[in-house]
Amino acid sequence: MSRVLWSSSQTIKYVVAPRSRPRLLKRGFVTTPSLFLTTTELWRLNEFNLKIDSDRLWDTVHSTARWTAPRAATSGNNDGDDVRTAGLARLTLSAEDKQARDWFVDTTRSLGCRVHVDQIGNIFAIRPGLRDNTINNENAGMAAAATFAGSHLDSQPSGGRFDGVLGVAAGVEMLRTLNDNQIETEGPVGVINWTNEEGAKFPISMMGSGVWSGQISLDDAWKVKSVITSTSTVKEDLERIGYLGDVPAHFDGGIRVGAHFELHIEQGPRLEKSRQKIGIVQGVQAYKWFTIVVKGREAHAGTTDMSSRVDAMQASAQLMLKVHQIAKHGCSDGKGLVTFGRLKVSPGSVNTIAGLVEMSLDMRHPTDEGLAEMEENLYRVCKTMMNATGRNKDGGPEVTLQQDFASNAIKFDERAIECVEQSALSVLGDMEEHGGLRDGGGSHQKVQKMMSGAGHDSVRTNLHCPTAMIFVPSKDGISHNPVEWTDKEDCAIGANVLLQSVLRMDKMRYERGDFYE
Amino acid sequence: MSRVLWSSSQTIKYVVAPRSRPRLLKRGFVTTPSLFLTTTELWRLNEFNLKIDSDRLWDTVHSTARWTAPRAATSGNNDGDDVRTAGLARLTLSAEDKQARDWFVDTTRSLGCRVHVDQIGNIFAIRPGLRDNTINNENAGMAAAATFAGSHLDSQPSGGRFDGVLGVAAGVEMLRTLNDNQIETEGPVGVINWTNEEGAKFPISMMGSGVWSGQISLDDAWKVKSVITSTSTVKEDLERIGYLGDVPAHFDGGIRVGAHFELHIEQGPRLEKSRQKIGIVQGVQAYKWFTIVVKGREAHAGTTDMSSRVDAMQASAQLMLKVHQIAKHGCSDGKGLVTFGRLKVSPGSVNTIAGLVEMSLDMRHPTDEGLAEMEENLYRVCKTMMNATGRNKDGGPEVTLQQDFASNAIKFDERAIECVEQSALSVLGDMEEHGGLRDGGGSHQKVQKMMSGAGHDSVRTNLHCPTAMIFVPSKDGISHNPVEWTDKEDCAIGANVLLQSVLRMDKMRYERGDFYE
Repeated sequence: MSRVLWSSSQTIKYVVAPRSRPRLLKRGFVTTPSLFLTTTELWRLNEFNLKIDSDRLWDTVHSTARWTAPRAATSGNNDGDDVRTAGLARLTLSAEDKQARDWFVDTTRSLGCRVHVDQIGNIFAIRPGLRDNTINNENAGMAAAATFAGSHLDSQPSGGRFDGVLGVAAGVEMLRTLNDNQIETEGPVGVINWTNEEGAKFPISMMGSGVWSGQISLDDAWKVKSVITSTSTVKEDLERIGYLGDVPAHFDGGIRVGAHFELHIEQGPRLEKSRQKIGIVQGVQAYKWFTIVVKGREAHAGTTDMSSRVDAMQASAQLMLKVHQIAKHGCSDGKGLVTFGRLKVSPGSVNTIAGLVEMSLDMRHPTDEGLAEMEENLYRVCKTMMNATGRNKDGGPEVTLQQDFASNAIKFDERAIECVEQSALSVLGDMEEHGGLRDGGGSHQKVQKMMSGAGHDSVRTNLHCPTAMIFVPSKDGISHNPVEWTDKEDCAIGANVLLQSVLRMDKMRYERGDFYE
Repeated sequence: MSRVLWSSSQTIKYVVAPRSRPRLLKRGFVTTPSLFLTTTELWRLNEFNLKIDSDRLWDTVHSTARWTAPRAATSGNNDGDDVRTAGLARLTLSAEDKQARDWFVDTTRSLGCRVHVDQIGNIFAIRPGLRDNTINNENAGMAAAATFAGSHLDSQPSGGRFDGVLGVAAGVEMLRTLNDNQIETEGPVGVINWTNEEGAKFPISMMGSGVWSGQISLDDAWKVKSVITSTSTVKEDLERIGYLGDVPAHFDGGIRVGAHFELHIEQGPRLEKSRQKIGIVQGVQAYKWFTIVVKGREAHAGTTDMSSRVDAMQASAQLMLKVHQIAKHGCSDGKGLVTFGRLKVSPGSVNTIAGLVEMSLDMRHPTDEGLAEMEENLYRVCKTMMNATGRNKDGGPEVTLQQDFASNAIKFDERAIECVEQSALSVLGDMEEHGGLRDGGGSHQKVQKMMSGAGHDSVRTNLHCPTAMIFVPSKDGISHNPVEWTDKEDCAIGANVLLQSVLRMDKMRYERGDFYE
């Protein structure tokens, strides 16, 4: 029989179990004392109650936020003294990003990890498992592929403190919790800090994971120039901050990823609205980016009567509202999203009728089919706009549509999703028992299966290993904004689900024979 | 009896009349030979057929267009070899403007005019009449106030060849025609080139005439900085090009203007559409400029469902279309104009829902009452926008409205309008007789009483002297654009109406005793 010693707090400080394995395995993890419990053994205990330290996680999120540049003025509150509005400005490969990276490397090393930096600056911190020997193996590629928690430490120019950071901080908290409780995992586990997820400074988002996954060539990524603070390239900035590693930045030949779990804030309002705690992310919705150009005819605002105008701005306003209708009625389930985020009007003079409007359209749907339906409707609307005016023969408005980017719907790995689902039910059910979250319903009411609206590094890893994501509520659904917020309790719930998901996957992989001894 | 000698062309080369006045008047105009006809005598001839030289006028318009800077790229055709699309880029007080001014001074001097430059660079070329002695009078302010044709030689950065230029060129052509035909006017007549009508480089439009009229202080005008090619001030640029004159720039104490007629292209499509040739401008419509700010909430385009958004861009599109309805239905006669020419969206990212939209609104109506009615509706629409969403309590969209500029409706002088009307009927009736323009109707069908949609220097002069304007058709109603065009024949008709209007006013002023001998 196993014996579990409870600490005074909810967090387990020591889990002691007699060794029951038939033979002694070669242990890679040198910092753990001789008392230990393997993941597999852990799961045999039905009353499993391993918990992260909520205070410590919260401290990690906010103490690492000191590595921030002064933020640009935004619509948010700029009061830096209030953590609820202070936000974070940590552009990728900046001096502040270097500080956060240094912290990540130092901390994970001090927790017994071997840390690898690849050629695009991705940092892999690997905590050895029972069944790998990476600690003395210079050829990391030959080691057992770890089960990772991953996300990113870079932020938008005027971003929040949780987007990306929470996932990395929860990964570090996972390492600490495993150490504190002297847990040995079957295979290695680890934490990844992916380079340039935001794509704010170097305008390719999910760049580090994109290179690793083979979707972006290393050379192309290296050449990308900063669009914000300078014109330096990715490679130059990697060298400058000392994070141009020598490990190949490729899933095949570099650091292998056995599985990838990402805890992230929802960045939307659904969990909060439905008073739920965990989003079990099934995948990422399909989306396309378009540039729409509406060409009218410049003319004097005072001398051109309304019926003689070809007003590109007015035509654009009509177009925008019609396209908004597509989100509501133009796809069978009304689950589409349309956003006009960028708009440029020329000549841009108060008393000149607009001759040209160029705007961006971001169009999304949970399924590829739904997005295709929306796109069909978009083409129809543009065509109708031109015909309705009956003027396109003599000058406008002409509407042209150009597709800039397309991303198919992503479906995460079923086994990985199952790990998250079971962990969420376990964590939330457990909390209910302890009176933490009771809300008139069972734990299943605290969990929602959902699609991610945004892209994440997990989209890239999903191509090569079992991947799933865990969402926690975002206050008012706001993100990419200093007022982005997730309550401490919700961060802790998410981190516990992440911890359990990694352990469940470790067990699952062990059982199917992923690890050699 | 008078005797009229016709030249072989339609243009009168010599008009000879015996002197029938009881006593010899002191003549100020020294270049005219002894044969002459006074304006008053001219009008006694019922078959008055004084005509400008259409070829010469056309040549003036296009030959002076050589003083142009290379144009910025626009939506128009940039082919500089085709006068129909070459346009004109002659920013006020630029090197090119200096060349055009030098030409104007040299030409009007060579035609016998005394030329005055005032402290804001307005150039007044005065052809002495029978009843003034300005030619030997250093104190120009004491001379009889001339009847002027005036407009401007400066253009938009990417403007056309007719806006302003036609009025000055037709004024010069008037002087030439008077000289060629040895016409003596009762009082002095002249041509004005007003400084910085466009307000493109130094952003106050109708600046020179505004200072002259007392609406803008000279000091304020001098201090205005260039917003286009440099940051020099008006005064610095006046000095640089040698057009900082010493004549006070003021209607009272500087050059007095007895009456002001301005020939201008319509800059709208009404004359062309109705196949009419002359617009008898009754005044200038009222207008106001507003800045409208719509505040929403920035959020991630992929993660925020449609019903949770406070999308400033979508709200702005709705607002724009509602305000467009005001032009059609929101004022009793549907004669309103609304234009959203400038729009800025922030943060301006393809995948971020707009948090803030700032746009300009230009709102016009022929009457002050009509504009007030539109404004009331505008406030109502903004208010409804905020209420309809029901969200302004928790963050948006908030709509704020700020008035930046207001100009009441201007009514031109009745006597001056009468001069234009009679001249237009005379010129067009006459053309009909000569088979030039017959179009199945009488000459009245070629004339339209209309309001000017745009402001002009005449708005300023109208405060202090009888003023009226003459419009000629603009091709497709386009202006402030290189493809701005008015046919040669229409330019000539306009110039003839201008010539007659000045002469009619000269006679009218003589008859009411405006001139001392």
